Amino acid sequence: MYFDHNAGAPLLDEVRAALAEALAPESGVLGVGNPSSIHGAGRRVRDAVERARAEIALLAGVDEGEVVLTSGGTEACQLGVLGLARVVAGGTGGVLVTSPLEHPCVVAACARLAGQGWEVRQVALGEGGRVTADAVAAALAGTRRALVALSAVNHEVGNRTDVAALVEVVRAAQASLFVDAVQAAGKQRMGWGVDALALSGHKLGGPAGSGALVVRRGVALEALVEGGKQERGRRGGTENVLGAIGFAAAARAVRLRGLAWRKELARLRDELQARLLEIPGARVVGDLAARDEGTLSVGFAGAPGEVVVQSLDLEGVCVSTGAACSSGTLEPSPVVRAIAGEAAAREAVRLSLGWGTTAAEVERVAGLLPAIVARIRAALAE
Amino acid sequence: MYFDHNAGAPLLDEVRAALAEALAPESGVLGVGNPSSIHGAGRRVRDAVERARAEIALLAGVDEGEVVLTSGGTEACQLGVLGLARVVAGGTGGVLVTSPLEHPCVVAACARLAGQGWEVRQVALGEGGRVTADAVAAALAGTRRALVALSAVNHEVGNRTDVAALVEVVRAAQASLFVDAVQAAGKQRMGWGVDALALSGHKLGGPAGSGALVVRRGVALEALVEGGKQERGRRGGTENVLGAIGFAAAARAVRLRGLAWRKELARLRDELQARLLEIPGARVVGDLAARDEGTLSVGFAGAPGEVVVQSLDLEGVCVSTGAACSSGTLEPSPVVRAIAGEAAAREAVRLSLGWGTTAAEVERVAGLLPAIVARIRAALAE
Repeated sequence: MYFDHNAGAPLLDEVRAALAEALAPESGVLGVGNPSSIHGAGRRVRDAVERARAEIALLAGVDEGEVVLTSGGTEACQLGVLGLARVVAGGTGGVLVTSPLEHPCVVAACARLAGQGWEVRQVALGEGGRVTADAVAAALAGTRRALVALSAVNHEVGNRTDVAALVEVVRAAQASLFVDAVQAAGKQRMGWGVDALALSGHKLGGPAGSGALVVRRGVALEALVEGGKQERGRRGGTENVLGAIGFAAAARAVRLRGLAWRKELARLRDELQARLLEIPGARVVGDLAARDEGTLSVGFAGAPGEVVVQSLDLEGVCVSTGAACSSGTLEPSPVVRAIAGEAAAREAVRLSLGWGTTAAEVERVAGLLPAIVARIRAALAE
Repeated sequence: MYFDHNAGAPLLDEVRAALAEALAPESGVLGVGNPSSIHGAGRRVRDAVERARAEIALLAGVDEGEVVLTSGGTEACQLGVLGLARVVAGGTGGVLVTSPLEHPCVVAACARLAGQGWEVRQVALGEGGRVTADAVAAALAGTRRALVALSAVNHEVGNRTDVAALVEVVRAAQASLFVDAVQAAGKQRMGWGVDALALSGHKLGGPAGSGALVVRRGVALEALVEGGKQERGRRGGTENVLGAIGFAAAARAVRLRGLAWRKELARLRDELQARLLEIPGARVVGDLAARDEGTLSVGFAGAPGEVVVQSLDLEGVCVSTGAACSSGTLEPSPVVRAIAGEAAAREAVRLSLGWGTTAAEVERVAGLLPAIVARIRAALAE
């Protein structure tokens, strides 16, 4: 039972089929050639990459030329923040507006810029960690050509930011806007017109190692990985052809699926949340008024999140304490800490539902947790 | 007919089989999970990634812990040069020793460092563009903690550098050494003990988008793409699991193949070279005394390389004018220019042979080229 969709969605059948087809010797797509080669073999691979790019563009509601293929969401976020920063400030440093809730790769990019003389301003958080356009406008006060780096959906607690409102205040301040849409893709229409938008194939049910940065037409961006002229000079290196094909198959499946399924997802998540809140000392972290349908960040007073995760794992249930990218750090979730404090961070458990999650699975997890929490509390009380 | 192995080797049957197996629903490897997740699903994927890493380490003759998975050779080279540079000079700039023959991604890294105040010294080239340890020692004279960035095998003309001798002079100068071994892997034993060594899966017959940087134990390296703690903090972002599995299958196939096949490869290349040198006005560029067995850079006076490539393409033969990563730039090969001048650069044609190249294919290309060259010359003389 998999309640860790935010760490990576299970591979979709459509993706498996597309990858198998690309790998079949008779397709020729993956047999021979470098997509940058101008000969016949190269052109066949190039065609496959460009078809993939077109599918990703359709999902994002942008033109193909705006899609820069990357090795995943992390590289897309790093390229988005660092690539825009270099152009915005010409390397001299400026003002960067972000929040304490961002994914480690965005946090790392901001830290790098801070080391290069940028002033990093953290947006003031509202109820449940909400990031509002007003708070961003306040942080932008008095700046000139600042850079804003925020997520559309928070990866740990699911808070959803009103990106359209964000675009307005950022434009009014003549700032640039990077949006991490890794957790939003497939659940929201994304034609917001932000300057750069990061996507991950893995989070949609595509293969790990595939991602894209959408760079709005006319927006300059400096490459992070340089080499050849691939991706119009915005990302050097031969494209991950198989990854692009898999990402595209996931993007297509997600697009054809539409957005209506989110209601059912929200229903399942709300059911799970209601059941878990029956456990004494349970708390939910996040902005309950505007939250991703698949994400539930809970905590049980006195039960360390890591122990809950391990206990569920023994029962065959996969959940996490936070970002998989933070695994192994032994640090409590910085996201939950920023919203709800140290104790809540130590106790945070993220259950993320997605395509394929069933009511029976929800029932089973909801049934397991009361005893697990009680057992952990009893063991720690000894 | 594929004479463009240096741009990317055809996918090996072993790789196709390994990828198909990983994709099979019953294997579970690619179905569910993020390799950084600590739950059962994540651990299964992690196991697959670590098995892949072990295979790559075996090919490179290093410990698993020294292998940093990347999105390809380009990222590996960029990480190697920029990652070592940041640690060597602490961001303040130093001396970088390189050659005018390097791959665009190494050239780009050097250019970036030059922009950050590094003094870039180009090694003096010997006969046919040879890069000797003596020339490197001369370039290192008077430096302290310099960085050397060179390739083991040149991607365009095939020049092979004596890396073991390089290691000695670099150590004597207390400098750091990055080696681009993308074209050397699978053809040479690579246990040279350099500080960082770049590899590409695609050049071995694995999938595009897979690569690795070998970082010698104890050598500090700053990440280029930052995010989570993946790859021991040296490369953030979820690993390209499918890419790693394919790269590993190629590494294994190449390792089990041994090095004896290179003799046959050299024989085929020499046969091709002898036949092409019969064409009036033909020239071979490179260090004929120490050259990669599969690489042949030729030129035919008065016949632009690009036209030769296109003419061969019409006959179903894939060759290139130089690095695929330089395609579309319309610039003549900077490698051939540095060795043999502007005219030779405009006329350069790279024929690269590899695993699977047959005597019949060599015969066919050798049979086609005299008429093609004559036709081009006649057309241009009109």
